[in-house]
Amino acid sequence: MPIRVLAFDGDDTLWHNETHFQLTQTEFRELLRRHVPDADVDARLFATEMANLSLYGYGIKSFTLSMIETAISLTEGKIPASDLEVILGWGKRMLREPTKLLDGVRDTLLEMAARYQLLLITKGDLFDQESKLARSGLAELFTGVEILSDKRVESYRTILGRRGIAPGEFLMVGNSLRSDIVPVVEMGGSAVHIPYHLTWRHEHLDEVTLPDQGWSRLGSISKLGALVLSMDSPD
Amino acid sequence: MPIRVLAFDGDDTLWHNETHFQLTQTEFRELLRRHVPDADVDARLFATEMANLSLYGYGIKSFTLSMIETAISLTEGKIPASDLEVILGWGKRMLREPTKLLDGVRDTLLEMAARYQLLLITKGDLFDQESKLARSGLAELFTGVEILSDKRVESYRTILGRRGIAPGEFLMVGNSLRSDIVPVVEMGGSAVHIPYHLTWRHEHLDEVTLPDQGWSRLGSISKLGALVLSMDSPD
Repeated sequence: MPIRVLAFDGDDTLWHNETHFQLTQTEFRELLRRHVPDADVDARLFATEMANLSLYGYGIKSFTLSMIETAISLTEGKIPASDLEVILGWGKRMLREPTKLLDGVRDTLLEMAARYQLLLITKGDLFDQESKLARSGLAELFTGVEILSDKRVESYRTILGRRGIAPGEFLMVGNSLRSDIVPVVEMGGSAVHIPYHLTWRHEHLDEVTLPDQGWSRLGSISKLGALVLSMDSPD
Repeated sequence: MPIRVLAFDGDDTLWHNETHFQLTQTEFRELLRRHVPDADVDARLFATEMANLSLYGYGIKSFTLSMIETAISLTEGKIPASDLEVILGWGKRMLREPTKLLDGVRDTLLEMAARYQLLLITKGDLFDQESKLARSGLAELFTGVEILSDKRVESYRTILGRRGIAPGEFLMVGNSLRSDIVPVVEMGGSAVHIPYHLTWRHEHLDEVTLPDQGWSRLGSISKLGALVLSMDSPD
């Protein structure tokens, strides 16, 4: 069955995202080192984020709340409110950050939009993702936008069912093995993994657990057009 | 055109919501009065929420961040971190709150599901709303769920377009004049307003700006079945 629908992840596939988190986390580490020089700030923040995930979900607001909680608990309540105000400000700065597209994204999407139906399937905070898409200048290229709280096999099945897309004509493009590749291949679709140079620890996946086929890897989105064409005409 | 699709708002239409915000806000007021006895805490919090709305959107995480910001600014940074930790805890408590249905909701939805297609159209934080719906026990009654960052005429048009629903066969049920009634009537649909005993100040709307027709008001959701039937067979 030829590919008819290309779906793209947003964060770190179309636009930079993890960079902003890691830059802020570096500032957070330095701020806390002034209060607790020996603390493993990164490990404590990650533990807090994981403990809060089922309650907060993903996104910048969740990250900001987890930074504040970690700062209070690591300093045993001794951190001054003025430092917490600085952390609040980092969260707002991240929310205001311009949507910076990755290299080759605009040209590739323009080329693909002429041949395929394009969807954006991204996870995270609804408000934040809509705002990033609006600022990206890409919104009019997508025939549909799906913002999910999490990307599981069932979430993809629901989207395809509602839109009348067969798994065999669906290809997902993304940087996360856990969210964009594994569930799509399990559903019977195809997937293209384009790694970003940074990955949030939570999205790490042991390569051993990866499916044998149904997906491939590209170094850059610019090669996507040739790859999809080659999939449509095997040998 | 007979009504074919009934859409329901979630917060304060199907389940209690504003109550939790106002209870927490009462605790917040009392906490801050210990530090700044003369401050108009409610006005300051509302101003902070409104200033943050375009950045944070709606929901409990946004509310929590705005409470922390207000607490720091009202006390000029003098509030101890332990008090801010208490505020973080309130946010988590709200997120864990069981979904408590309003009177008559379950019976009415069961009755309506036999005669109409039911949609849930709610706004707010994606993760939080999905979680509330899952805990409500109502999820299987809806053929579709739409969680929006905001409810405007255009948001309703998009949903109806995608689902192949004509405005004339669509009826929206909700407690907010601003979000559930005015945009739906403007689009050419019908709406039923069921007021909740509390309304967040941001959702208040001058009754003067209300449309003359296309909507009605009920004191309780239990009367919805009779009302829709009477709309379908005018005299």
